[in-house]
Amino acid sequence: MNPEFLLPAPIRIDQPFDGRRRVIIDRISPEIDGGRFPAKCIEGEAVTVEADIFTDGADTIEAELLFRRRGDKEWSSVPMAALVNDLWTGSFRVGAPGIYEYTVQAWVDHFLTWQKGLKKKIDAGQDIGIDLKIGATIVELGAARARGEDAGTLHHHVGLLTVGDRESAVEAALGEELAAAMLRCPDKSIASMYEKVLLLQVDQRKAGFSTWYEFFPRSWGGEPGRHGTFRECMAKLPRIAQMGFDVVYLPPIHPIGLTKRKGRNNSLVAMPDDPGSCWAIGGPDGGHTSVHPELGSMADFEAFVQEAESRGISVALDIAFQCSPDHPWVLEHPQWFRWRPDGTVQFAENPPKRYEDILPIDFETKDWQNLWSELRGVFLFWVGKGVKIFRVDNPHTKAFPFWEWAIGTIRQMHPDTVFLAEAFTRPKLMARLAKAGYNQSYTYFTWRNSKQELQQYLSELTGTELVDFMRPNFWPNTPDILHEELQTGSRAKFIIRQVLAATLSSNYGMYGPAYELCEHVPVAPGKEEYIDSEKYEIKRWDLDRPGNIRAEITAVNRIRRENPALQQTRNITFVRIDAGANREHDQLMAYVKRSADGGNVILTVVNLDHRNTQGGWLRFPLELFGLPHTQAFTVEELLTGQSFHWNGEWNFVELNPNVMPAHIFRVILPS
Amino acid sequence: MNPEFLLPAPIRIDQPFDGRRRVIIDRISPEIDGGRFPAKCIEGEAVTVEADIFTDGADTIEAELLFRRRGDKEWSSVPMAALVNDLWTGSFRVGAPGIYEYTVQAWVDHFLTWQKGLKKKIDAGQDIGIDLKIGATIVELGAARARGEDAGTLHHHVGLLTVGDRESAVEAALGEELAAAMLRCPDKSIASMYEKVLLLQVDQRKAGFSTWYEFFPRSWGGEPGRHGTFRECMAKLPRIAQMGFDVVYLPPIHPIGLTKRKGRNNSLVAMPDDPGSCWAIGGPDGGHTSVHPELGSMADFEAFVQEAESRGISVALDIAFQCSPDHPWVLEHPQWFRWRPDGTVQFAENPPKRYEDILPIDFETKDWQNLWSELRGVFLFWVGKGVKIFRVDNPHTKAFPFWEWAIGTIRQMHPDTVFLAEAFTRPKLMARLAKAGYNQSYTYFTWRNSKQELQQYLSELTGTELVDFMRPNFWPNTPDILHEELQTGSRAKFIIRQVLAATLSSNYGMYGPAYELCEHVPVAPGKEEYIDSEKYEIKRWDLDRPGNIRAEITAVNRIRRENPALQQTRNITFVRIDAGANREHDQLMAYVKRSADGGNVILTVVNLDHRNTQGGWLRFPLELFGLPHTQAFTVEELLTGQSFHWNGEWNFVELNPNVMPAHIFRVILPS
Repeated sequence: MNPEFLLPAPIRIDQPFDGRRRVIIDRISPEIDGGRFPAKCIEGEAVTVEADIFTDGADTIEAELLFRRRGDKEWSSVPMAALVNDLWTGSFRVGAPGIYEYTVQAWVDHFLTWQKGLKKKIDAGQDIGIDLKIGATIVELGAARARGEDAGTLHHHVGLLTVGDRESAVEAALGEELAAAMLRCPDKSIASMYEKVLLLQVDQRKAGFSTWYEFFPRSWGGEPGRHGTFRECMAKLPRIAQMGFDVVYLPPIHPIGLTKRKGRNNSLVAMPDDPGSCWAIGGPDGGHTSVHPELGSMADFEAFVQEAESRGISVALDIAFQCSPDHPWVLEHPQWFRWRPDGTVQFAENPPKRYEDILPIDFETKDWQNLWSELRGVFLFWVGKGVKIFRVDNPHTKAFPFWEWAIGTIRQMHPDTVFLAEAFTRPKLMARLAKAGYNQSYTYFTWRNSKQELQQYLSELTGTELVDFMRPNFWPNTPDILHEELQTGSRAKFIIRQVLAATLSSNYGMYGPAYELCEHVPVAPGKEEYIDSEKYEIKRWDLDRPGNIRAEITAVNRIRRENPALQQTRNITFVRIDAGANREHDQLMAYVKRSADGGNVILTVVNLDHRNTQGGWLRFPLELFGLPHTQAFTVEELLTGQSFHWNGEWNFVELNPNVMPAHIFRVILPS
Repeated sequence: MNPEFLLPAPIRIDQPFDGRRRVIIDRISPEIDGGRFPAKCIEGEAVTVEADIFTDGADTIEAELLFRRRGDKEWSSVPMAALVNDLWTGSFRVGAPGIYEYTVQAWVDHFLTWQKGLKKKIDAGQDIGIDLKIGATIVELGAARARGEDAGTLHHHVGLLTVGDRESAVEAALGEELAAAMLRCPDKSIASMYEKVLLLQVDQRKAGFSTWYEFFPRSWGGEPGRHGTFRECMAKLPRIAQMGFDVVYLPPIHPIGLTKRKGRNNSLVAMPDDPGSCWAIGGPDGGHTSVHPELGSMADFEAFVQEAESRGISVALDIAFQCSPDHPWVLEHPQWFRWRPDGTVQFAENPPKRYEDILPIDFETKDWQNLWSELRGVFLFWVGKGVKIFRVDNPHTKAFPFWEWAIGTIRQMHPDTVFLAEAFTRPKLMARLAKAGYNQSYTYFTWRNSKQELQQYLSELTGTELVDFMRPNFWPNTPDILHEELQTGSRAKFIIRQVLAATLSSNYGMYGPAYELCEHVPVAPGKEEYIDSEKYEIKRWDLDRPGNIRAEITAVNRIRRENPALQQTRNITFVRIDAGANREHDQLMAYVKRSADGGNVILTVVNLDHRNTQGGWLRFPLELFGLPHTQAFTVEELLTGQSFHWNGEWNFVELNPNVMPAHIFRVILPS
């Protein structure tokens, strides 16, 4: 077995067993599945680690959090502090993307134990003659460990404890100088270490805060009906950047198959000029590492990527591991597909549905090692062209171990790559993809519309263990999903769903042109597919069409960029809004987010009712900020620029959806 | 390092890595701290294991639970069944005490996947010509794996699928015979195994269901003031057995030190005839492996143990790892104690409190290996004398790693030993002792008195992960704890607390003589110590004194013995009792327990108010038994023998504490 194909196992600490290691370090958090998977964070972030730490008896203990970049030999350390009920906490700041390791070390501190007992005996008026001598022995041992000036200080204190009068001995024993010097030379010779080293995956900034714009390059040609090119798309980048997006996501850009090509509106028969679905990948012009000729050359693509980067925009590619029957792999690697008894290749099906323009890859092929290498090679190829972000199509229909291996090894080489899992499937599969390495995940946001649904879903994403490894990316629409709520075509509803996505989740995106223009007609009643879907045809968008919500999108994106509180997801607290006395409002929803440094506080209020003006009493949770219920403070409405003075926690808010269905307030609190 | 002194590490499955193993087995329950500690169960029990199991795509999977006794090479297996949301379950029955191992294996079943697709295609009226041929190939591979008659059956079906007419082919494809034969030869060649082997500690029956009676043998002499003997105690065993106790627990039976011996009521000065605290262990007559001469000889003790066993009673010894200054270890192993600068040995202290009659053992001694061996030897010595149950005194003041090693290795030799942790300390320390191997744990029950406190505490013990490794043992009193609630001396209150202990927890015990007699005077107001505590003097109990609750204790113990529902703790469900419309009664508490086989259902109702009659409407949860709210059924009051017919879920109950403050009903439901 090629060792390259092994998956990681939890790392055990290799500490010699010594029965005198009396401190117990019992449950570290975060720790995903017993250390089998890394927790995730963002470069530059402070990471908080908690653990249950205690020892037998009444001895005083000390603990420290150890951390290092994988590959480093030496640990860095920060002291941990006791919170309550034997729970300890510590935090450290991570650097550039990559894998970090962390664990906890703790020990009995005989000096502090002695000092604590001494104080109690003095308070009780007991004789402390022997205790001072015991202390002198402890300090003497400290002096032997101490470095620099501390050694002298400690030797001096040995004298004070033993030869001085009682008063000066007590003063020395309980004084700051002795404690500080002893703190610098703890006796860790029989310290306990947590039994495992835990892993932390540090991701680049856009894994945690990103604003995605999806579009089909083929629709961005100069004249109606003509296939667009990368060169033409480059001209659109300034507009996208101006709107505040920092990721442009392109559906597959590869050659498209001809066999069983789908026509407009998913018809089984394509007209000669139908471009086909770009997810039917591969043809005579190549497969997953080629560019569809009508989009331009590879050089054009690279120029597009560079132009985007120069504007602060990353290009995200859609990687869909499936093939049209014309894909080169079908001839070159027939063993990667299933073949039927009649000699034909097995197309994708989910009986009774058939997808004859697409072949699934057989992950049970005996040739799986070559298959895995080739698939991983697709990502590495595009990384070589400057792409760092990948949106992976239906990862839950490919073998999970492949993802863990592929993403893990790619990120060893390129720690700043980001993988978004496009899996709209059962909860445990979505969680597993995140654990296996995906940096971002599509979510059920699209189908969570009521206040209760949204609050419950956010609690699940931010209040369970998911928060440590699964990063949501909220999409109000995609080319596949035009939710029923949007099918009314209500402009207010489009704004509502965009504000929600953009302020609930730090990562969000939209299928841009259709969303800007409030496109809302489904292919048939009860369906979530768009009519005349761009998936099967070249469209031409008039992006300046009246009724568009470009200005609103732009404003919200600007507010996100300017306010660090909106650049995280886990920092959310829902806020009470009442319709009447003690009756929660069911259409007005509000939530507050606070930046990690506490300096930026954003309160978002959304009217979920796109038809009617709604008003209610909002209780701002002043207690979260250590302020009294009656505190006066200022809120600045960031969409309008207006400021309001609020007196105390309860304030009336009202939102007319036909003006603007949301408030985004910056809350300015006295410090 | 002597490998004997290592602690266990989770066992990883040693399965060759194969990328084609597509099924994910994600989180097994029970799994304690990532497999670091065993879950616990009782011999003969059926153990239920759950896991998240799924694969990519839409393939059908199968899973099985693997289990074996540690040391066996071959796994036994039982099929698992899917519950909901990718959660699977399976269960197996364990045998005699010892360590079991378990894990999960799962695989894609291509036959079932094919059959499911075929059905859908037939329903949709699609052509299935090729599908039948694909199925024939799958069945042919099955025939090659099959044994005995199945091979023939499967070959025959290959023919039916390929050469018969469509109708008979379909009939064969979807028929029972084919499915049954294929089920017996699954293709597990690329099955996935869970990455770890998990451990299960199987305990003897009394670890799960036991009724403890604690008494000081020295008080059971024939004449007032004379030290009792084991021989005299033997005569009391029939009475204890008749009351329904099956464990007698003796405080330390070892020689008692003279130096700094405590007098009556914990006085610092002992009178010449004061017997001293039996927890000040060791003197010229020996230490932890000797018997206090006044109790009799070692042979007398062994006779006592045998006599008890013959009556179904186990003798539990109190093992307290601390020494009087006269203990032989102080001279033989001075390195196991702390010595002070003045050459004296360090006595126990928790400043400003001092316990000069007791020396703590220094678990940081460099000689810890010999210390550990000697301490473990104490248990092994008494096991050699017929003792299997140990109540360990203050285990949380001795090094935790010692317990894990000592209990783990003792139970390898003697799997039927039971250790009860006498730790009344912080929650995480108590949990750790249980994880480290203790079979039973003292609890906070004594300090949980209100309905809300009791319900919340039981939820914590039975509704969190504690349920898998920590077994509560409820004590309404101990020689150290006379709770304020009992200090009123109310006979009803003593009965209430005994019924609660005996019916909430399958393991319970009492400091017998004092409890039978409703002893209730504390040493001082606000203290929980008994006045004239038996810890420091020889008492003489008149157990037939009027006002005793012997009959009530006996009745409740009989009911426990006769009703398997009361022989478990985790099977509790609290039941609603209303004082008025929609107002929960705050003094009446009720709960239902159901035996593992479902055949025995016990409903306990307790009036927590020991002064006043209380009545209320009880809602029996018929829905738990799949019965309609209007079901009529019979309940038999087991304390009185009366039967009642209840019509539907809501029934009125009333309890006069001066008659009997509790009902214990056997619920007879239609099956």
